[in-house]
Amino acid sequence: MGDLTRPDWSGRLRRVWRTPPADVCALVVSTPSNITYLTGFSGSAGVFLSTPVRNWLLVDGRYAEAARQARSDGRLADIDVVTTPGSIDGSLAQLLGSSEVPAGVVGFEAGHVTVAMLRGWERMAANRRFEATTNWIEQLRSIKDADEVRRIRRSCDLLSGVARELVRWVRPGRGEREIAEDIDGAMRRAGLTRPAFETIVASGPNSALPHARPTDRRLQEGDLVVLDFGGVLDGYCGDLTRMAGVGKVGAEARALFEAVRAAQVAALAAVRAQTLASEVDTAARQVLETHGFGEAFLHATGHGLGLDVHEAPRIGRRTDRIEDRPGNDEEEHDRHRLRAGMVCTIEPGAYVAGIGGVRLEDDVVVTDEGCEVLTDVPRDLLLV
Amino acid sequence: MGDLTRPDWSGRLRRVWRTPPADVCALVVSTPSNITYLTGFSGSAGVFLSTPVRNWLLVDGRYAEAARQARSDGRLADIDVVTTPGSIDGSLAQLLGSSEVPAGVVGFEAGHVTVAMLRGWERMAANRRFEATTNWIEQLRSIKDADEVRRIRRSCDLLSGVARELVRWVRPGRGEREIAEDIDGAMRRAGLTRPAFETIVASGPNSALPHARPTDRRLQEGDLVVLDFGGVLDGYCGDLTRMAGVGKVGAEARALFEAVRAAQVAALAAVRAQTLASEVDTAARQVLETHGFGEAFLHATGHGLGLDVHEAPRIGRRTDRIEDRPGNDEEEHDRHRLRAGMVCTIEPGAYVAGIGGVRLEDDVVVTDEGCEVLTDVPRDLLLV
Repeated sequence: MGDLTRPDWSGRLRRVWRTPPADVCALVVSTPSNITYLTGFSGSAGVFLSTPVRNWLLVDGRYAEAARQARSDGRLADIDVVTTPGSIDGSLAQLLGSSEVPAGVVGFEAGHVTVAMLRGWERMAANRRFEATTNWIEQLRSIKDADEVRRIRRSCDLLSGVARELVRWVRPGRGEREIAEDIDGAMRRAGLTRPAFETIVASGPNSALPHARPTDRRLQEGDLVVLDFGGVLDGYCGDLTRMAGVGKVGAEARALFEAVRAAQVAALAAVRAQTLASEVDTAARQVLETHGFGEAFLHATGHGLGLDVHEAPRIGRRTDRIEDRPGNDEEEHDRHRLRAGMVCTIEPGAYVAGIGGVRLEDDVVVTDEGCEVLTDVPRDLLLV
Repeated sequence: MGDLTRPDWSGRLRRVWRTPPADVCALVVSTPSNITYLTGFSGSAGVFLSTPVRNWLLVDGRYAEAARQARSDGRLADIDVVTTPGSIDGSLAQLLGSSEVPAGVVGFEAGHVTVAMLRGWERMAANRRFEATTNWIEQLRSIKDADEVRRIRRSCDLLSGVARELVRWVRPGRGEREIAEDIDGAMRRAGLTRPAFETIVASGPNSALPHARPTDRRLQEGDLVVLDFGGVLDGYCGDLTRMAGVGKVGAEARALFEAVRAAQVAALAAVRAQTLASEVDTAARQVLETHGFGEAFLHATGHGLGLDVHEAPRIGRRTDRIEDRPGNDEEEHDRHRLRAGMVCTIEPGAYVAGIGGVRLEDDVVVTDEGCEVLTDVPRDLLLV
C-alpha cells in the first residue's frame, strides 16, 4: 500500500481560482472540512480567506499553538496564519477592509454561513459586497487526488477487516448497544482513529428505521439486523453496511434482502465517469420497484465520501432538494455527472414495517471504465 | 433521586409564544436541539413549525416510523406530524402557503438557518416575509425546569463517579489515546449513553493546547495532564475537567495549577441569579491576572449545559462576539444576567507554552443565593 504521500496543498489552493464566479476576488471559507482540505488545519474555530494571490488562516488564541505546530510540520506553507486576539469575525472584517485584499466582491459559502454570521460580516465590513457561492470547494473536493484515494482505501481496508469479523459479536440474545460497542472497539483496535458516525445496530422492528440508534433490544429469532458503521483514518472516512439474519428468517425478509442486493448490484454496474448520478439512483430504484419495494426505498442511493462521511456528489433523484433541481442547460446537467476520482457509497435500502429493513453499502471510486469497489466483504445475509 | 418525571411539553410550547417579536405569527424551528426540546423528536432531519394556536413537526420518510413510535410513547401529543414524501422544504412551503398558518411574518432561527436555506424558502413560499430571530428558543432552554435539572444531575453524578476513578487509568507511561478510551469505556459502564464530545487527554506540551485531541504520546515525568470529558444521559449532558501531574511536577506548573484553582473558586463564588455572566468571567480573569497568567486564559469561563454540551448562557467577556456586544439599555443588559435554573460550566484555564496547560471544570445550577455544584470530585492535582 506504500506510505502516505504529502497532500498537494499548493495545487489545491491554485485550483480554487481556476474558474471563479465573475467579480469575486476573495472567498471566505468557513466550512470546517473545506478549511481542512485547503490548509490541513482541523481546529473547530477558524476562517480561511483565499484570494488569487494570497491566503490567510484566521484562528483564535486557543488554536495558535496548534497552528504553530502545523507550520513546523510543513503544513500551512503558502498561508499567512493570523492569530486573532479578539473575535475571528472582527479580524476578518479588518482584513477585508485593508488594501491587502483586492477590491471586489467577497464570496462566502451559502451552505454553511448562517444568516446571523452574514449580517455580522456585513455590519463589520460595510465597504464590501458579499455574494453567496454554492459548492465551490465541495466540487473540488468531490474529485479525490491520488493521496486522498490512498487514504480512503486504507480506511476501507481496515473497515472491511472489521466487517469480516461481525459474526463474533452479532449473536442471538445480545443487545444492539453491546454489539455496537464491540464494533466500535474493533474499529479502534484495527487502527481507525474514531467512528465516522454513531454506529447503527438495528434489529427486528428497529431495522425498519433507516436511522435507528442502538437500543437495549436483544437479537431475536427471525430478526433482520442492519449493521452500519464507519471509521476515520488520517481524516478520511470509510462507510459500510452489512446485514445479519437471526435464526430462521422469514420468506418476506429474505425476499427483501435479495431485492436490495440486486438493487445494489444494478447501481454498482451503473457507476462510471460521465454517467449522471441520478441514473445510478434510478438503476437501484427500478430494481426495487420491479420487486414491489419501490415505496420502501426511503433515501438516496449514495453519497460522496472523504473528509466528511456525507459530501458531494449525491447519488439520488434529481429533484429531491432545492439545490439539485434540474437546470435548463447542458452546463447544469454536467454538474451532476460522475467524474473519475469521485469516491462515493452505493447503499440502496428498503424498509417495511412488519418485515424489517435491509441496507447494503459499499464504497467505490469512480473510473472511466466503471468503478473500483474499495470495501471488500461478502454481501451475503450473515446468518447467526 | 426519584424517577424521571415527564417533560412538560405543553408548557414549553406555550412559553414559545409568551413574548413573541411584533408581527411574527409563526416560527420555523430548524435547530435540532431546539426541536428536541419542544417535541422530544431527536432525528437529524426534521423541521418544526410553531404558531400560537397549532404546531407541526415535518419529518421525511426516513423518520416516519420514529415519529409514530414517539407518538405511541405519549410524546408529540399537541403536535401534528407531517411525513413529507418529497423534500421537507417543499412541505414547509406548502404549509406556509396554506390558510392553516395565520397570515403574518414567519420567524426563523438566524443562528442556524444558512443563507442557502433561507433563499430556498423565500423562493418556494414567495407570499411570505421571513424575519431573522435570535436565541428565541435558546433563551427558553437556558432556564431548566425541574425535570431537566434532575436529568443533568444524574449525568453529573455518573460523570463524577468516573472522575473519582481517574487514577486507575492515568498512569506514567500510558498513552493519551488509551487513557481516553478507558475513560469512554468507564462512562459507558457507568450508564451514560455516549460521550458528549471527543474526550480530551492532553499531556505535557499537548496540555498547552486548549482543544487538543488525544495522541499516542505517553505520560512522562513532570507532565501536567488535562482530562476533559463529558457524558450524555437521557439527552442531557454533563461536562467535567480534572488535572493530573506525573511524578515530580515543577514549581511553575504547580503555580499555574494553584492560580487556576483559585480562579475557579472565585468564579464559583461569583455565580448567583441576577449577576451578569460577564462578572463571573471577570472574577476568574482577575485572579489569573493577579497571578501573572491573564494572557494565558484563552477562552471564556464557562457555557450553558443541557441538551447541547455548549448552549446559552455564555460566561465570558461581554464583547467577545458580535451577538454579545453590549447594548445601550437596561433590557439588553438584563439579557446577560444569570437566572435561577440556569445550568452552566465554570472552567477557567491557563495555557503557557513550555510549562503546560491547566483547566478545572465543574457544572453548576444557578440559584437565588448562589449556585449548587452538580459535579462532585476533589479538585486537587491528581498525583500519579
